[in-house]
Amino acid sequence: MAASVTPVPDFQALAQPGVQRLRAYDPGHDLVALRRKFAAQVLVELGSNENSHGPSPRARDAVLACLEELHRYPDPLGADLKLALASYHGLDEAQILLGNGSHELLMMLAQVFAGPGLEVVASQFGFAVYALAAQAAGATLRLAPALPTDHAMPRGHDLAALAALIGPQTRLVYLANPNNPTGTWFSGAALASFLATVPASVLVVVDEAYLEFVTDPSLPSALLLLERFPNLIVARTFSKGYALAGLRVGFIAAHPGLVAVMERVRESFNVNLPALAAARAALYDQDHLDWVRDHNAEARVELARLLRERGLFVPESQTNFLLVDFGREAAPIEAALVQRGVVLRPMVGYGLPTCLRITVGNREENRRLLQVLDEVLA
Amino acid sequence: MAASVTPVPDFQALAQPGVQRLRAYDPGHDLVALRRKFAAQVLVELGSNENSHGPSPRARDAVLACLEELHRYPDPLGADLKLALASYHGLDEAQILLGNGSHELLMMLAQVFAGPGLEVVASQFGFAVYALAAQAAGATLRLAPALPTDHAMPRGHDLAALAALIGPQTRLVYLANPNNPTGTWFSGAALASFLATVPASVLVVVDEAYLEFVTDPSLPSALLLLERFPNLIVARTFSKGYALAGLRVGFIAAHPGLVAVMERVRESFNVNLPALAAARAALYDQDHLDWVRDHNAEARVELARLLRERGLFVPESQTNFLLVDFGREAAPIEAALVQRGVVLRPMVGYGLPTCLRITVGNREENRRLLQVLDEVLA
Repeated sequence: MAASVTPVPDFQALAQPGVQRLRAYDPGHDLVALRRKFAAQVLVELGSNENSHGPSPRARDAVLACLEELHRYPDPLGADLKLALASYHGLDEAQILLGNGSHELLMMLAQVFAGPGLEVVASQFGFAVYALAAQAAGATLRLAPALPTDHAMPRGHDLAALAALIGPQTRLVYLANPNNPTGTWFSGAALASFLATVPASVLVVVDEAYLEFVTDPSLPSALLLLERFPNLIVARTFSKGYALAGLRVGFIAAHPGLVAVMERVRESFNVNLPALAAARAALYDQDHLDWVRDHNAEARVELARLLRERGLFVPESQTNFLLVDFGREAAPIEAALVQRGVVLRPMVGYGLPTCLRITVGNREENRRLLQVLDEVLA
Repeated sequence: MAASVTPVPDFQALAQPGVQRLRAYDPGHDLVALRRKFAAQVLVELGSNENSHGPSPRARDAVLACLEELHRYPDPLGADLKLALASYHGLDEAQILLGNGSHELLMMLAQVFAGPGLEVVASQFGFAVYALAAQAAGATLRLAPALPTDHAMPRGHDLAALAALIGPQTRLVYLANPNNPTGTWFSGAALASFLATVPASVLVVVDEAYLEFVTDPSLPSALLLLERFPNLIVARTFSKGYALAGLRVGFIAAHPGLVAVMERVRESFNVNLPALAAARAALYDQDHLDWVRDHNAEARVELARLLRERGLFVPESQTNFLLVDFGREAAPIEAALVQRGVVLRPMVGYGLPTCLRITVGNREENRRLLQVLDEVLA
């Protein structure tokens, strides 16, 4: 090995101020390593809110149909998927921006519209990516306190508190409905009232990653409010209800003027060939999505009931996960569960050390979870 | 449709200054539309430098093997692919950052290390993404004049001119070797001499997207220089030699300290499940890569000869494309070719209105190209 000719630069000092203060998103346990460790046993993966029901078989067929075209670039316009999404959701194609998962678009929104000297508003216990997006852009993050634990939506978004934080420097507000990791939600009516108080120059992002699991009729998609509020941006994903987390497809729907500005920053081929094809195919299989929603809702109610029977605090959820409060430090419980091959998501990073987030799995996964949990809690 | 409650914001004015001045990357013709138009005829796609030889069959098998896991997130660490890359290239895994194509990483480098008040240096006729990366970050782009057309490397990078532009505000230098769209290159020795003149705090990105096609022994990978120059960053892709453009996998190799800072900004699941698997499988099929390189080199020499026989100016290339100068405005020629189902890449956007960039295809594609070109030029 030749000696270094040039001294090693101070890369941290060379980075932009926002990046200097940034810590990366924590995606949870190293599942590749755990899968190897438990190769001969059962590993129950309930830490990432993946959809155990799997995607539509049509999505798999669409991936298969790409196999002879892997040397071709994906369609940089994503035209077929956008057309399908526009038709399905009653939107114009010019209102849609496709992303490498909604994660990319949530980051890109702050990159384009926030920056040093500007503020981003989000809720305590909101999805972790909003804070990262603000920080990466060098913007100032202002966190509204969440609703109290004795509220009907414990630790949920307090829309009044969020509205109170909006000031002259606020450029973006990130809301999640339902929210991850709390599972809480607010009604379409409450969102409309909130939006009516927000100045036009403040962009409100409503992240509906879990909307496909919702069964409460008071919570329709915010897509219905786009015409009334041109400063509204709705983020959706194919990772959850459509069970295509492995392919990374998300989109935002917003005013065409906003989409046009964002398009300048989007990398032309950000959504890849099998992802575009599979998402489109999945969108056309409404029966599969309905089946997933119904099965998930049933399993969620049942799992919540069984966890509550064990004396745990389990708020209602409209998602495919439950935020479970053990009333004491959860880290030893979580560690014991992982040792026995049950992966959940620790909540220490969210400031919730007594909680674990549990994905609602299929029947067998939920049975195994409860069995191992009983062993650990005994 | 309900009336808008909130006035439409001026999205352009709300965007960050760099984004306000930005124009999106031009990915060329709308191939989805052209494929539909030519569904009953032959469409020869030689506009995007795709690899007509296709990927290793092992890459396709790897995608197939993912089909039952599409509901799972990809490995956020990309551990298996990084391990394979480290082993193949003699690197440490901590030196590798994976990207959704190298495009994402080229943009991210400017996002992390450039910004308002800082400068990015690149070459005239360098790959278009470097300018976009600088502009999106709000940095000032400084373009060095290219080598003259009567040079052995016409319109290639002038390393002395590039070095002369580096000043106290320079944070990044983007070089491509070989360069797209010129096909030109510089030797490993020339690069080492250049790097020896660059201050340690200036990061030099060497984009080797086309390196797998190189047969000239004077042009080894800049990966060999990483130990000597900790401010060197080498960008590679699976889109070209490995023929996986549809999957979007690229990486940079650099000092572990630089990779650690970039990791904070990388989205955890930026490379998707089939992409990680296919890239790893492709890497292990050295025979296929050698076969691609040999066939491409043979076809490139032959196509260049046949184009020169037609009186066109065709500089040497170490890539899978040729920059062909027609000596007169090429737009009408290009339009006539597209009408006949032959897609090439116009070069007007690069300030080369008399040139077209022609991907070296397989035997049948090259034959058809020449046939249609003869019709058009007649």
